[in-house]
Amino acid sequence: MAQCFCLMPVRGVLSKSVKGLSFRWLSFRTSYCLAYMALTVADSLLTLNLVRRAELDVRNIEPMVFHTTIFLASIGFLRLASKWPKLMRRWQQVERQLPAYRTWQERGELAKRIKTVTFVLITMSLTEHLLSTISAIHFANYCPATSDPIESFFRNVVDQVFLVFNYSPWLAWLGKIENILLTFGWTYMDVFVLIIGIGLSSMFKRIKRQMEQHKGQAMPESFWCEIRRQYMLICDLIEEVDEAVSGIIMLSFANNLYFVCIQCLKSINTMPSIAHAIYFYFSFMFLLARTLAVSLYLAEVNDRSRDPLAILKYVPTNAYHIEVERFAMEINSMSVTMTGLRYFDITRKLVLTVAGTIVTYELVLIQFENKGFLT
Amino acid sequence: MAQCFCLMPVRGVLSKSVKGLSFRWLSFRTSYCLAYMALTVADSLLTLNLVRRAELDVRNIEPMVFHTTIFLASIGFLRLASKWPKLMRRWQQVERQLPAYRTWQERGELAKRIKTVTFVLITMSLTEHLLSTISAIHFANYCPATSDPIESFFRNVVDQVFLVFNYSPWLAWLGKIENILLTFGWTYMDVFVLIIGIGLSSMFKRIKRQMEQHKGQAMPESFWCEIRRQYMLICDLIEEVDEAVSGIIMLSFANNLYFVCIQCLKSINTMPSIAHAIYFYFSFMFLLARTLAVSLYLAEVNDRSRDPLAILKYVPTNAYHIEVERFAMEINSMSVTMTGLRYFDITRKLVLTVAGTIVTYELVLIQFENKGFLT
Amino acid sequence: MAQCFCLMPVRGVLSKSVKGLSFRWLSFRTSYCLAYMALTVADSLLTLNLVRRAELDVRNIEPMVFHTTIFLASIGFLRLASKWPKLMRRWQQVERQLPAYRTWQERGELAKRIKTVTFVLITMSLTEHLLSTISAIHFANYCPATSDPIESFFRNVVDQVFLVFNYSPWLAWLGKIENILLTFGWTYMDVFVLIIGIGLSSMFKRIKRQMEQHKGQAMPESFWCEIRRQYMLICDLIEEVDEAVSGIIMLSFANNLYFVCIQCLKSINTMPSIAHAIYFYFSFMFLLARTLAVSLYLAEVNDRSRDPLAILKYVPTNAYHIEVERFAMEINSMSVTMTGLRYFDITRKLVLTVAGTIVTYELVLIQFENKGFLT
Amino acid sequence: MAQCFCLMPVRGVLSKSVKGLSFRWLSFRTSYCLAYMALTVADSLLTLNLVRRAELDVRNIEPMVFHTTIFLASIGFLRLASKWPKLMRRWQQVERQLPAYRTWQERGELAKRIKTVTFVLITMSLTEHLLSTISAIHFANYCPATSDPIESFFRNVVDQVFLVFNYSPWLAWLGKIENILLTFGWTYMDVFVLIIGIGLSSMFKRIKRQMEQHKGQAMPESFWCEIRRQYMLICDLIEEVDEAVSGIIMLSFANNLYFVCIQCLKSINTMPSIAHAIYFYFSFMFLLARTLAVSLYLAEVNDRSRDPLAILKYVPTNAYHIEVERFAMEINSMSVTMTGLRYFDITRKLVLTVAGTIVTYELVLIQFENKGFLT
Repeated sequence: MAQCFCLMPVRGVLSKSVKGLSFRWLSFRTSYCLAYMALTVADSLLTLNLVRRAELDVRNIEPMVFHTTIFLASIGFLRLASKWPKLMRRWQQVERQLPAYRTWQERGELAKRIKTVTFVLITMSLTEHLLSTISAIHFANYCPATSDPIESFFRNVVDQVFLVFNYSPWLAWLGKIENILLTFGWTYMDVFVLIIGIGLSSMFKRIKRQMEQHKGQAMPESFWCEIRRQYMLICDLIEEVDEAVSGIIMLSFANNLYFVCIQCLKSINTMPSIAHAIYFYFSFMFLLARTLAVSLYLAEVNDRSRDPLAILKYVPTNAYHIEVERFAMEINSMSVTMTGLRYFDITRKLVLTVAGTIVTYELVLIQFENKGFLT
Repeated sequence: MAQCFCLMPVRGVLSKSVKGLSFRWLSFRTSYCLAYMALTVADSLLTLNLVRRAELDVRNIEPMVFHTTIFLASIGFLRLASKWPKLMRRWQQVERQLPAYRTWQERGELAKRIKTVTFVLITMSLTEHLLSTISAIHFANYCPATSDPIESFFRNVVDQVFLVFNYSPWLAWLGKIENILLTFGWTYMDVFVLIIGIGLSSMFKRIKRQMEQHKGQAMPESFWCEIRRQYMLICDLIEEVDEAVSGIIMLSFANNLYFVCIQCLKSINTMPSIAHAIYFYFSFMFLLARTLAVSLYLAEVNDRSRDPLAILKYVPTNAYHIEVERFAMEINSMSVTMTGLRYFDITRKLVLTVAGTIVTYELVLIQFENKGFLT
Repeated sequence: MAQCFCLMPVRGVLSKSVKGLSFRWLSFRTSYCLAYMALTVADSLLTLNLVRRAELDVRNIEPMVFHTTIFLASIGFLRLASKWPKLMRRWQQVERQLPAYRTWQERGELAKRIKTVTFVLITMSLTEHLLSTISAIHFANYCPATSDPIESFFRNVVDQVFLVFNYSPWLAWLGKIENILLTFGWTYMDVFVLIIGIGLSSMFKRIKRQMEQHKGQAMPESFWCEIRRQYMLICDLIEEVDEAVSGIIMLSFANNLYFVCIQCLKSINTMPSIAHAIYFYFSFMFLLARTLAVSLYLAEVNDRSRDPLAILKYVPTNAYHIEVERFAMEINSMSVTMTGLRYFDITRKLVLTVAGTIVTYELVLIQFENKGFLT
Repeated sequence: MAQCFCLMPVRGVLSKSVKGLSFRWLSFRTSYCLAYMALTVADSLLTLNLVRRAELDVRNIEPMVFHTTIFLASIGFLRLASKWPKLMRRWQQVERQLPAYRTWQERGELAKRIKTVTFVLITMSLTEHLLSTISAIHFANYCPATSDPIESFFRNVVDQVFLVFNYSPWLAWLGKIENILLTFGWTYMDVFVLIIGIGLSSMFKRIKRQMEQHKGQAMPESFWCEIRRQYMLICDLIEEVDEAVSGIIMLSFANNLYFVCIQCLKSINTMPSIAHAIYFYFSFMFLLARTLAVSLYLAEVNDRSRDPLAILKYVPTNAYHIEVERFAMEINSMSVTMTGLRYFDITRKLVLTVAGTIVTYELVLIQFENKGFLT
């Protein structure tokens, strides 16, 4: 899976060599990724067959949106994989020019942070899938489709398959595995984007730490010259990385936004059982937390990029060289942000705007739903 | 109550010493605050029990929103209390470096302004609560729940309690007192935020006054250097204060916004009696005025922060030192505002945006309500 | 009427002396204005009596909105009148410091433009009122309230009066005259705001003309110093004028916006007669044109304020003094606009935003109206 | 047709002389254009006659919107034609002052790009019209209006004509030809606007290429002086071109926006036949692609105008002349964009804002449509 392929280099950036990185079409990982995509396409077609039987509605197309997003993300990751080794070498090159870490602790901090975030998200995702399975088993027992409980569970979970084919345990397990793979594909997409955000903003922090050591001191022009050069290197790297991953960011945002809306709508329905209710609210909270985390970690890049301005204010008059003025002007004029295909900048303010729009939309719908208009 | 604890230091900033300020977990005030929070939680649970019986609707969850906000605000104030002594010492330190007041009148002006605003808001809040009680008594007489008028009054006002427990005068009075405490907790939150806004923007006014004395004069570079230094101190202080209180600001805004929407919706219903109508319109006007006052006093910080620019324009050419240029550039590049958890900046323009959104939303709902769709 | 009182000084600004200007509470004009306001209040109360009988709806409160706006505008103009002489002296003082007009033609141009705009708007307003009267006569003949055609005309036009009082020709004529006065009060408000916009933006044009004469030439620093000084004088004047008239601007915008929405909604109804249809569409077009004219002439102030930037680009390198750089920076950093009580800036882009919001709102309503939901 | 007249000069700009360009009222092209406009007016009146019989609805006025837009565009193009020769001479003059192309390939690149885009769009438009005709023939066979299949085809396609006149083959063909001309008028409008965008942004690319050759080198001040001069020339040209064509841009945007909305609404209906469905989705995709292409190519002008900033960051300290600083400041302060009559700037971010608004509007409508409210 291209995903695994991509994740490793990201870890490689932090401490190890990136020399060994390469991308070959003829490799186990690439073939695995292509197999994954083929399976997704097959599953998507079966799902389309299921969806087109129902009434067209924002909620009914949910499985299609899910499958399509994962498929597009796979393509995105595959394309990214081919650019990855070069990008990572560039990243390492930039990191080597930044102010050195002073302590071992500082050095390990970032790696630790990334590992924690990844671990938490993957664990939550696992828990969510487990709950989903339990709730499905519960549902299968509650109103069984056939006499065999295992069969009715599978008929419920992978119904798109058995609408076309006859029931067979092999198919059932294949469908379930594909289902798990898709779910992790989704989580992976968010985790990946989030880690990129952490990695990029950490570089600004290193510069800031260096500047803070000399806050208010009269430093020579060469010091500022060097700081400015490093800052510009990071900005250029961010632009390059953004160009490579902003397609995936767009997908991740669009997908999360769609599912938040859908879950909001569903939340006003009555749940068939307690197991469903627990699963639903856990799943909803997890979705919201994940969406928020992705947005805020990416917005962090923009937040951190403006930090040097606050320290530049304290440069004393006699040391206010032309380089300092230029640095301040350039920070002001540039907007250093991760973007969604350059259509929108990811900043902290974006989060509220989006949240406001969703709330307004849902309020109108809920108001009507309650009055029996949209039953 | 952490609230009272917090208010005093604010007054202390203006004229008295902040040396005596300290925060201890083992003190009467802290225990009182914790008791208050415990009571709020108990009341919230009783209210939740009441609310979940009704149909889910924007209007029906009103008591829950109210209780939750107050509870969260209490946590916010408790957390703030622990940071407060340090923050106030920092504030006083900044104030001492600002241009001295020239007259005793100037010195007392701010304290007077804060006292007036506090007095007016607290008085209005008292009046509103009195009207609410009168209207409830009126209603209790009009359609009594039981033969005892006092009991029917309490059954009406604190019905969440007697849904679970049997009626007892002790519980009734406790419920009523909790009710009063909650109302004042709400008012306190707004008053606190408002005073912070007044206090911060007053510092910019002192700098402006100093600059206006020398408007158009050719001042030495050291003068501008000093002014710029003072300006930056204020900006840093604002950032620190904002970090500490912006959670409370967010709560205050969200809460006020929700209640304005609800009251707008309610305003199109017919009132059961004249007493209710008077109470309702007084309460609504008070809510609007308070929300507007909070927004505008906080927006004042941003407005005042840009004032120096207008005076810098008049610096004569021969005295246009590099420090003046730098000052102008820095004012331009910084956005000095109070924020709601940094998700939105509080400026005068925000007020109209929010008002516009509310009006549009209400127009749509009213239009449908009138046509009998949303009865 | 304060209006007439105000209009004259505006003309005085352009060529004649403003020495004679003064405001006295005991004068014919002030008493006339107060009488006008008293009459408006009386009429408003009668109208309120009429409105409260109908169902509460965005459309039914139309007469109340109209009366309240005119009344508030009268207060605004009266308050403005007391500040007017001082403001006009300030204006004249600024104008005298601007580059002199080179030809008589240039000098007369502004006066001519103001006269034309005023004449066109007043004439259109007259025509509109005439059409309204004709359409009302037509309606009175079509379904007469009484046997006397004149009486049924008046009963139709000033029905709020005869709901309380018995019919009398004197009252009828008084009501009709009040009606005419109100209509012209409304038109006056827009014309006044529009003329202020023309007057202010014309000053930027004089500076631009002066700069264009020396475009691309290497001018001494003193030249730019002088230009910059003049520019700043205008900016300060605009701020003062804006502070004085922005209440009236807010009223004018809010009122026009409300009526545009109402007319949009009405436009989908069937008209009772051809006379009504002609009157309606003329009136609607006139309203749209007037609203657009007011917005665009006020936005012109902002547009013109940025014109010098385009000429500054052509200053040759050797003449790029610190004053030129400072001028460019200050134009960039200031936002010179007329505002609605500082809640919104009036720029060309505002027009589209507002238009877009109206269109969206109307689209939703029309869509429902057509489906028989909002009959 | 003014359109053809205009297209040629645009090609002329790139390599050939613009000396021969002129506009005469008495020429074959102008008369052809006037004839085209007369035919459009006639057709519009017939369509108005058809439309006013149906219920007033956003969807029913579709033919009127289409005809009116094309007619207004014709006027716009005729007016543009009279300014065109002067504008093109100005354009050529600017191009001659830009850095020379280094290779023949570079020189031909732009011409090739324009030809490709034009060819693709015209071909697609042809295909779309062909599909429309096939789908109409299919429909005519499916439920024929008369026994003659050709007559029922024409009665279906140009029904506005035969509502007034008796059927005649001559009229039928005339109507069909007019129909084709209108469709191409529409496509032409978009193609024209798109080519203007390509042409203007290509000039910034030439400057960028020149700057990139000297990235990070210490260039003399005269080099930056020259680059800055060229940049300003382009900005001025863009402003002139924008003034000339922004009316047409506004029409193109408004028209495309309206049709995207309509098609979205239509997409939820069931199609009468497979031929209709294929035509509909092809047509919808084509519309979306074209609208996006127009927006993005115009937004390119704004994107490219900020490119020099990224290279200016690398100017070494010792070569950071006042001209470089000035250049950076001026790029920051100017907003170089194509506009819709200056009411909105065309940037990449606009695209998402518009898309978001459409999606929200459609979601609300679809939600109601599905529930049987808007049948």
